[in-house]
Amino acid sequence: MSLPELVPAEPHGAALLDEIREQPAALRRLLAHETEFADVAAEAKRTSRTLVRLVAHGSSDNAASYGVYAFGLLPGWTALRDSISLTVYSDAKLDHTGSCVLALSQSGRTPDVVEYVSRARANGAFTVAVTNDPDSELGLAAEAILPLAAGPERSIAATKTYLNTVATLALLAAHAAGRAKEFADGVARVADLIDEALPALEAAVAELAVSFAFVGRMFVIGRGTELATAREIALKLLETCRIAAEPMTATAFAHGPVAALDALFPVWAIASRDENLQAVREAVARARDAGAGVVASGAAAGELDASFRLPTPEAPLPLLSPMLSVLPGQLFARALALAKGYDPDHPQGLQKVTLAR
Amino acid sequence: MSLPELVPAEPHGAALLDEIREQPAALRRLLAHETEFADVAAEAKRTSRTLVRLVAHGSSDNAASYGVYAFGLLPGWTALRDSISLTVYSDAKLDHTGSCVLALSQSGRTPDVVEYVSRARANGAFTVAVTNDPDSELGLAAEAILPLAAGPERSIAATKTYLNTVATLALLAAHAAGRAKEFADGVARVADLIDEALPALEAAVAELAVSFAFVGRMFVIGRGTELATAREIALKLLETCRIAAEPMTATAFAHGPVAALDALFPVWAIASRDENLQAVREAVARARDAGAGVVASGAAAGELDASFRLPTPEAPLPLLSPMLSVLPGQLFARALALAKGYDPDHPQGLQKVTLAR
Repeated sequence: MSLPELVPAEPHGAALLDEIREQPAALRRLLAHETEFADVAAEAKRTSRTLVRLVAHGSSDNAASYGVYAFGLLPGWTALRDSISLTVYSDAKLDHTGSCVLALSQSGRTPDVVEYVSRARANGAFTVAVTNDPDSELGLAAEAILPLAAGPERSIAATKTYLNTVATLALLAAHAAGRAKEFADGVARVADLIDEALPALEAAVAELAVSFAFVGRMFVIGRGTELATAREIALKLLETCRIAAEPMTATAFAHGPVAALDALFPVWAIASRDENLQAVREAVARARDAGAGVVASGAAAGELDASFRLPTPEAPLPLLSPMLSVLPGQLFARALALAKGYDPDHPQGLQKVTLAR
Repeated sequence: MSLPELVPAEPHGAALLDEIREQPAALRRLLAHETEFADVAAEAKRTSRTLVRLVAHGSSDNAASYGVYAFGLLPGWTALRDSISLTVYSDAKLDHTGSCVLALSQSGRTPDVVEYVSRARANGAFTVAVTNDPDSELGLAAEAILPLAAGPERSIAATKTYLNTVATLALLAAHAAGRAKEFADGVARVADLIDEALPALEAAVAELAVSFAFVGRMFVIGRGTELATAREIALKLLETCRIAAEPMTATAFAHGPVAALDALFPVWAIASRDENLQAVREAVARARDAGAGVVASGAAAGELDASFRLPTPEAPLPLLSPMLSVLPGQLFARALALAKGYDPDHPQGLQKVTLAR
């Protein structure tokens, strides 16, 4: 009788890893579209259509969470993740004058996002398609286009298009606030920092992922701009690792979820050096008290009482932190999918284009 | 050697059950406050402050999801679940003129909600406290008060105050749309329907709960107005049963979570007879294909291909459906907590008042 043998995993997940590594190049391509950002910001201001309605699903909707902060903190505009179903399925008659609709869809083919844009445009909104395919239906339906310029994305799990959507929202908000140069330089610097940080992060997560092979559920905690990061890391874990990963703010965590924790229910916390750090630190302490293991990512990850720390470089501008703190989550999701024996590039049961309706 | 004996559970969960049963009386008390609803709606219209900013945590924030639909569908006003952290912690300077802030807090003592109201009021918003304690700090901070009139709530898990918050939002939106009488009659009818439906539902969930005693994670699916219900049932399961229950729309479910399902990962679906039923039906079919057990609640629960069906009475007005479809979830959470050996009235690690900051 021969001994059982450890069979090396198949070389799955190559596309996802390539695309994670391509993110700096994708950001640099995006920066070539400064004119479009300037034009869209100017048109929204000129026509006083500055109530920003973000419409999106999935990773794009996670980026929309970031947009609420980018527009609120830079030009002081109210931005909301608008309900697509209220307008498209329930047929509400909202007043869209005074609104700027940012429709976020990498494929540009999600039917209810296209339908929302058509209705909002007919009702007086300034409609902007933020898409990786300017020739898509969404591009045709909207008044203006901001190309994501991320290049082809083959993995089902979005990485390049997520990061370029976040960057697009930051750059557009910066143009609206008259701070375009500062943020363009910041995004360029972030691209360099990602290139520098990836090799060490790749090595760290590969080791860590093995110990999570049997985890079935997680909470992912972020607050402020990092709520977007928490939502995106949770979705990556759900899509590629089949983990019931629920994102939430540090506040919501203390409001109920903390009661559900135990040693088999780890927590991922996003820690940036900002006004939310203390709340995240307290959430981590409560999770540890409940016996849960804690993974921390972000620039301030090293300052938390976490079981595992995946620190990322300090962003050149605080508002750009989420572009760096998401990296460990992207890499970890891929590594954990491999550890669980799944194909990270092609999660079972999912398609690249969501035909939501 | 004596045989092991089944020890009957202790009489925990009496307060929660009492409060679930008190909901019809609480709704009838709320209806005595028609004058306040009329005044608040009139003031918002008179001063053109009709961008509705809902601020809340926990169950109150779940009710806020309902408010987005109530205001969108009745007066056609845009309502958003506003970010408390953007204004309070990140110190964004938003333009609050033209806004009506509805601050939802049963205790009226949540510090960051009170702080948000103070800032928004100073910036020109019409601020309204929706609270079970009109003498609270929140009541003092706001320009107007809508009392929840739910009576004392002893259980940590909100039931009466959740339902009365939903009813408050429906009644206020109806006043704004000139349909006050129709909705007041509707809420009165819902109170009667709850009284009639509870005994059979209590019996049904008690039986069902036992088979879920070892469940650790669930998805709860709702769409449109029933997203609020999905969020509230998920929170009840999380708080009282320590289940990682994640609420989501039928659309989001198909966008990734469906990949995580297996036979030990059941799904709860809310089905009302509305424009969303087909999307919910398709989500249930995908969950069944993945081998997941499905519990359905709501007026159209009987029409789904679910493993367990908990139908509720048809609401007198479609917009009031969520006031009935949440009942099975409230009762189930209590029954399952007992089946798991937990005290549903006092979940470990939680307090009644969330001192969010």
